[in-house]
Amino acid sequence: MREVAIIGIGNTRFGELWDRSFRDIAVEAGVRAIEDAGISGDEVEALYGGNMSAGRFVEQEHIGALIADYSGLASLHIPATRVEAACASGGLALHLAFLAVASGWYDIVIAAGVEKMTDVSEDIANDLLLSSVDREWEAICGATLPALFAQMARAHMEKYGTTEEQMAKVAAKNHANAVHNPIAQYRRPLSIDAVLASPVVAEPLHMLDCSSIADGASAVVLCPAEDARRYTDSPVYVKASVQASDSIALHDRREITTMDATVFAAREAYKRASVEPSGISVAEVHDSYTIAEIIAIEDLGFFDKGKGGVATLEGETEIGGKIPINPSGGLKACGHPLGATGIRQVTEIVTQLRGEAGKRQVPDASTGLAHNIGGTGGTAIVHILST
Amino acid sequence: MREVAIIGIGNTRFGELWDRSFRDIAVEAGVRAIEDAGISGDEVEALYGGNMSAGRFVEQEHIGALIADYSGLASLHIPATRVEAACASGGLALHLAFLAVASGWYDIVIAAGVEKMTDVSEDIANDLLLSSVDREWEAICGATLPALFAQMARAHMEKYGTTEEQMAKVAAKNHANAVHNPIAQYRRPLSIDAVLASPVVAEPLHMLDCSSIADGASAVVLCPAEDARRYTDSPVYVKASVQASDSIALHDRREITTMDATVFAAREAYKRASVEPSGISVAEVHDSYTIAEIIAIEDLGFFDKGKGGVATLEGETEIGGKIPINPSGGLKACGHPLGATGIRQVTEIVTQLRGEAGKRQVPDASTGLAHNIGGTGGTAIVHILST
Repeated sequence: MREVAIIGIGNTRFGELWDRSFRDIAVEAGVRAIEDAGISGDEVEALYGGNMSAGRFVEQEHIGALIADYSGLASLHIPATRVEAACASGGLALHLAFLAVASGWYDIVIAAGVEKMTDVSEDIANDLLLSSVDREWEAICGATLPALFAQMARAHMEKYGTTEEQMAKVAAKNHANAVHNPIAQYRRPLSIDAVLASPVVAEPLHMLDCSSIADGASAVVLCPAEDARRYTDSPVYVKASVQASDSIALHDRREITTMDATVFAAREAYKRASVEPSGISVAEVHDSYTIAEIIAIEDLGFFDKGKGGVATLEGETEIGGKIPINPSGGLKACGHPLGATGIRQVTEIVTQLRGEAGKRQVPDASTGLAHNIGGTGGTAIVHILST
Repeated sequence: MREVAIIGIGNTRFGELWDRSFRDIAVEAGVRAIEDAGISGDEVEALYGGNMSAGRFVEQEHIGALIADYSGLASLHIPATRVEAACASGGLALHLAFLAVASGWYDIVIAAGVEKMTDVSEDIANDLLLSSVDREWEAICGATLPALFAQMARAHMEKYGTTEEQMAKVAAKNHANAVHNPIAQYRRPLSIDAVLASPVVAEPLHMLDCSSIADGASAVVLCPAEDARRYTDSPVYVKASVQASDSIALHDRREITTMDATVFAAREAYKRASVEPSGISVAEVHDSYTIAEIIAIEDLGFFDKGKGGVATLEGETEIGGKIPINPSGGLKACGHPLGATGIRQVTEIVTQLRGEAGKRQVPDASTGLAHNIGGTGGTAIVHILST
């Protein structure tokens, strides 16, 4: 297996992009990534696109062919593959693109993620999110996604003494970071008090503990590590790319205060990258709900189990803290266009490792981790990148 | 890259399976493939599932995790990947599974395809099929899938003199084959006259020129070729697995009497397998409409361009003819559960190459080809298998 590098990244703005279509934003992100890599489109040998539910959001499947076509790549007849793993679709697209280059099958490959969520009503969007969990055993009984994460939060509070304030701090910290992120949906500070004062969606989760419905697209260009310096002076290397699964339904899990798919994927990723959690300079983790970030930073080994909330409140996950988490603003403040998120996280890590993150730059960032989950953790994908 | 073998196959019956759910049929096919391979479930290292539109058919995404879970594999935390390329989703799942084994990434891998189409009304199912073509430029103007294939048929008739009778012969031949296929949806003969007497859906296509909405699931087990004889006395080797794309919309194609994605994928597949079209003993091709089979057998190089209709009427594609096409009964008579079809085709080729096809056995079959397309040809996947 060959080493793999990322040589280009591109994002649309995340938010309510009512003036642009699904295909428009997919192409915009892809073109930006191609321009950033300094390649021409006809050098692209394969395309992997992550998307959760365009079939319902915009009544369009056959996403791979569609994106290849509207990117002007159809005449090259390149393989164009759409993958889906709910909210981890983007991370999965990168995982497959990584394998395609690592195996020597292709040299230059694009991994993209896209979701257009705001062209349907919020009711439809919310119902649609439930197709990421077990429709027949969870959703059908009335469980919503916030309700399922609320169960995890309540269990974590009971078991470890985690508090609503600690969860609110996740949101406050991520919003503070997003102020400096030009693509973020919400570029404004948010106080812990504001989170706690927001309406309760599913006790103990408040509205501002939840990430938001958004449109957005992100893309990265990969090539063999040995070729990377031909295209860029600041290549970022993919040291590990690992995917793992777990029961899709929460009630079938061994334990709901941890996500075994994350634990499993992270353990394998650290091994492949020959790095310990303490060797990670910066991480983007899947904060679809604030409790998800707390669980993730424990499962990823940054803090002991049960200590994620305390560490967060004490500022250890802020930029400048022990391990800066979600310097981009995370899903919470960037917005969470489902299929785009996993790639957007990686573009942030690349930006950090290039030292191009401006006012949200983590000092001396040399090794970064991106963590993307599907639904309540039925899928987890962990990438470790380094300069 | 390593050589890859198929050591197990499994199918559900295809048809209106109202007594079983999406997850039930996916697991049934997978378990049969595992049993056929003589392995135990915990030997499976990764799962690739093809599905077009469970998000709308059964309101469930996160298909990879779901199937891994209900197959009892969740506790192993294996990577479970869902791919989508409209009606080519199954072929695409096999392509990725092939790459995963060929590259040495995994040893034992399952590729599966599944679709549950009959739990929604026919109106919804028909609309949903349109998400395989360009929703914004074709479907929105009122074009249906039969209408788009009717345009291809009309152009083929004008350019090459192809007749309605020749197209009807495709259906008649495939139904004659399906009589002997225990999984087929329609196991009854169909005459050319009956096809021509059936209602016109989109002139010149009659109702019986069209494949049918169905439920079904199929699965195959792959392993490195060098290990295959440890599991089976009749391994079948994957000599080539190639994916190609084209414009998703018909009006953007260079030509509508051919599918460039098929031509491109087939050319590459023949090269990789070091075989000529004349070296293929048996083929399963994508006859979603009868005209599609005629176009496919030309694009795959079995007959000169424009001669597919004549050859079909003269019996050259029957079992015992020059190149038997769709001995299973094809999509026309087996039914076309979208995501399952591409894998079902491959299970037929494996059955033929094993010499286990009973009354539909193609004599001396040693090399077979499976051809799977998405929509009107925006994606094409070609597999070449041999004993």
